[in-house]
Amino acid sequence: MKKIRVTIWNEFRHETKNESIAAIYPEGIHGAIAKGIAAEDLEIRCATLDEPEHGLTDDVIANTDVLIWWGHCAHGEVRDDIVAKVHKRVLEGMGLIVLHSGHFSKIFKAVTGCSCSLKWREEGERERLWNIAPAHPITRGIGEYFEIPHEEMYGERFDIPKDSEILFISHFEGGNVFRSGVTLERGYGKVFYFQPGHETYPIYYQKEILQIIGNAIRWAAPVFFREMTAPNTPAIDEIKSVYEGPKAGIVQNVDGSNK
Amino acid sequence: MKKIRVTIWNEFRHETKNESIAAIYPEGIHGAIAKGIAAEDLEIRCATLDEPEHGLTDDVIANTDVLIWWGHCAHGEVRDDIVAKVHKRVLEGMGLIVLHSGHFSKIFKAVTGCSCSLKWREEGERERLWNIAPAHPITRGIGEYFEIPHEEMYGERFDIPKDSEILFISHFEGGNVFRSGVTLERGYGKVFYFQPGHETYPIYYQKEILQIIGNAIRWAAPVFFREMTAPNTPAIDEIKSVYEGPKAGIVQNVDGSNK
Amino acid sequence: MKKIRVTIWNEFRHETKNESIAAIYPEGIHGAIAKGIAAEDLEIRCATLDEPEHGLTDDVIANTDVLIWWGHCAHGEVRDDIVAKVHKRVLEGMGLIVLHSGHFSKIFKAVTGCSCSLKWREEGERERLWNIAPAHPITRGIGEYFEIPHEEMYGERFDIPKDSEILFISHFEGGNVFRSGVTLERGYGKVFYFQPGHETYPIYYQKEILQIIGNAIRWAAPVFFREMTAPNTPAIDEIKSVYEGPKAGIVQNVDGSNK
Amino acid sequence: MKKIRVTIWNEFRHETKNESIAAIYPEGIHGAIAKGIAAEDLEIRCATLDEPEHGLTDDVIANTDVLIWWGHCAHGEVRDDIVAKVHKRVLEGMGLIVLHSGHFSKIFKAVTGCSCSLKWREEGERERLWNIAPAHPITRGIGEYFEIPHEEMYGERFDIPKDSEILFISHFEGGNVFRSGVTLERGYGKVFYFQPGHETYPIYYQKEILQIIGNAIRWAAPVFFREMTAPNTPAIDEIKSVYEGPKAGIVQNVDGSNK
Repeated sequence: MKKIRVTIWNEFRHETKNESIAAIYPEGIHGAIAKGIAAEDLEIRCATLDEPEHGLTDDVIANTDVLIWWGHCAHGEVRDDIVAKVHKRVLEGMGLIVLHSGHFSKIFKAVTGCSCSLKWREEGERERLWNIAPAHPITRGIGEYFEIPHEEMYGERFDIPKDSEILFISHFEGGNVFRSGVTLERGYGKVFYFQPGHETYPIYYQKEILQIIGNAIRWAAPVFFREMTAPNTPAIDEIKSVYEGPKAGIVQNVDGSNK
Repeated sequence: MKKIRVTIWNEFRHETKNESIAAIYPEGIHGAIAKGIAAEDLEIRCATLDEPEHGLTDDVIANTDVLIWWGHCAHGEVRDDIVAKVHKRVLEGMGLIVLHSGHFSKIFKAVTGCSCSLKWREEGERERLWNIAPAHPITRGIGEYFEIPHEEMYGERFDIPKDSEILFISHFEGGNVFRSGVTLERGYGKVFYFQPGHETYPIYYQKEILQIIGNAIRWAAPVFFREMTAPNTPAIDEIKSVYEGPKAGIVQNVDGSNK
Repeated sequence: MKKIRVTIWNEFRHETKNESIAAIYPEGIHGAIAKGIAAEDLEIRCATLDEPEHGLTDDVIANTDVLIWWGHCAHGEVRDDIVAKVHKRVLEGMGLIVLHSGHFSKIFKAVTGCSCSLKWREEGERERLWNIAPAHPITRGIGEYFEIPHEEMYGERFDIPKDSEILFISHFEGGNVFRSGVTLERGYGKVFYFQPGHETYPIYYQKEILQIIGNAIRWAAPVFFREMTAPNTPAIDEIKSVYEGPKAGIVQNVDGSNK
Repeated sequence: MKKIRVTIWNEFRHETKNESIAAIYPEGIHGAIAKGIAAEDLEIRCATLDEPEHGLTDDVIANTDVLIWWGHCAHGEVRDDIVAKVHKRVLEGMGLIVLHSGHFSKIFKAVTGCSCSLKWREEGERERLWNIAPAHPITRGIGEYFEIPHEEMYGERFDIPKDSEILFISHFEGGNVFRSGVTLERGYGKVFYFQPGHETYPIYYQKEILQIIGNAIRWAAPVFFREMTAPNTPAIDEIKSVYEGPKAGIVQNVDGSNK
């Protein structure tokens, strides 16, 4: 059996700078997720912001089937060139799972083309997630709804594109609602955004959360990797209406430069 | 009557460097479009790549309701910070009409989140555009189909998001098909991509093309401009399940930096 | 100015059979809505189930731009042939606004192709409707959210198609969430489903509800009416690969019968 | 291994009444498809219009995972009550593959809610199908495009809903284009419409056609079957704003009748 190669990327700052957060996630959020989703069909590695190239070398990116992304306070420190590489690889087929505060990550803004803005409040309130898509592979094993006892509130209006297929709609105790699980496709890659997961709550130990992330990995695993190209293509049928006017003689590369 | 403030942005390189193209568009592609769409309800200005800030100063952006974008051989020269400003303004409500080779512009790739790659061929072949959405405001006055006698071929697979609503599907004489007119919404802004328009053909003088661009301007005119914010929001309902654990005390700005 | 011709269709059974409901809607739900949305640009008439042909004669249907539909306990009594005529007219361009328990009407099930099933509870609980689409014409004048003090609960999972564009997401006091305002397009017609409106609560007197229904009428007003045809169409381009095999010689009508 | 239970439904009239068509499909269109898609993981049976209950007894419907539908000249003879049972089963999870002239079948019109009208022409012209969704399971093994040497033309505008995900766009030699392969979801069921297949051409022997139908069966196989219900649901959270006004005391069944 060919394993799905998963890379869990974590900003990994809160856990190293704040003792009470470190107490919840002693091995980092990435460590908790890696342990929680461990399975025979997954080959899991982790990468963090402060490693060289954020741990996302060309080799790591080329050998990742599904990338999980957790970031919060240091989105601005992620290098643009590395985000561009990750984005390119998503378009070529790599799955991408963006968690919680990753809604404001450069990579999620890049794949959505939106501001990804939302309302928020940090009061440790109860969240109830309603499963809107019971037949979707990502919700397998999840009932009509489940609850998170204490969570940061994320509320509408969430600025995401219309092709976001909604899997979960949440209600927060303080009165807000949120599209808390949505999928997208970009290029040949599949993207899942999943809202749960603040660093101050032990959310990544909760059974349903780990089940959903695990399901999402299998769903997002690529069918193939294929480079996006813009080929100059010969005609299939005969062209009769040949133009006699000027030819610009300028052709273009994918990056918009001219040959 | 409040006029719609239109800015036509043109790379304006082909027309200044290639005599035969200059012969077709002596006043530039922007000049041809401006003349062709002129109407009482429109206040039209132009901007080009080689002006300071590409002609897209903060003041120009702030006073544009609908931005038309034509670029081809110099996408890479457009400054990232100006693209970011234009993108932000689209999310806040500004309409955006991207023409032809603008599919590879930084701004179109930014709003779609896709590679926007496609097949192409420059043989001056006939294109037939089928009107798939006769009740859409952008196709007003256009029949079941119309033809462009000589056009650069753009062919599928066109890498765009699934929420692209298709208005036109084209066939090219050499055997390719293309989704040649599609709309998107991003934030509060409306986006229209329209494929016709190579610089070596007199396409921007054709009646149907001008009609469609004109229709698109009225369709894309903003309902309002509203900044995208991510407010810390007080609870509406009482929160009972208050969390006793750690608080991270870190809040985030729209750009991902921490306060 | 050409007025929009609105027909408000009401089952009109609860109000005639239940005194306490009659006390809330002495002129019927249709009467309350008609009064509440009255405006210079609207020409409003009403029709009810127990009139001949349910008040929806060919003439009424042919002269209606937007049809509002309220039904609850007698969906099964609505004649199939009249539903088919209404459905056909929607496809030709007529707007359709389906209210509350109309989710189970034959016409809404016909245009969605879904079961339109949902959860429900009649406890007079508070509903809060979040405005997810502030730039949409139907939400004009509505803020971030508004509340209905007492409403029947409708809860997810609501079985509707994926092209339902979500305008409102609601939370109900008892813990459920619901996509409470969604739009669809079918043929050349626009459809709006709006959940508020149980017969035992004075909901159709509430300012926001009337504002939204009024906005929806202007949004759903047809661009044109056009019959749906399936024409045998001559070729535009020359066909070279003419088939030498059998011809069935059977052509089809829109109803599937053969000519 | 649990096999996918496939039922191929064929109108089976052309093949019995027209000798030249019988020569192409001596075992019926259903027979040709059954032979062409035969595989170890499929359990295939056939059903035809003139059998009792059109071969679609309650038992057959209950034991079908994916239903393939071919009809043309006798759509009107298919019983409404049987269409309703098939539709209900699709919503509960059964896959549905509608072929060619089945676009005008009662079941396809029921699941789309549209007229499904289109242009047509029977000249045996070449069709070229472009694969727009290379990463979709239904297009597995299919290259950028393939051709059918002789086919009935189906042309735009095809009246289908906006949530039709496009897998193929076709061009016909005579100058028309068509969305020739589209998917939908309705309830828990998956639907695939595939345009190729006129009775006068040997299309259901072509390798690519059989590959695509086979792929579609695996894609449309149900995750589960689940009845669509509209339950009266107790509150999860406490309701404080209890209404003191009238109660209608009327509850509704899924069919709209009152209890």
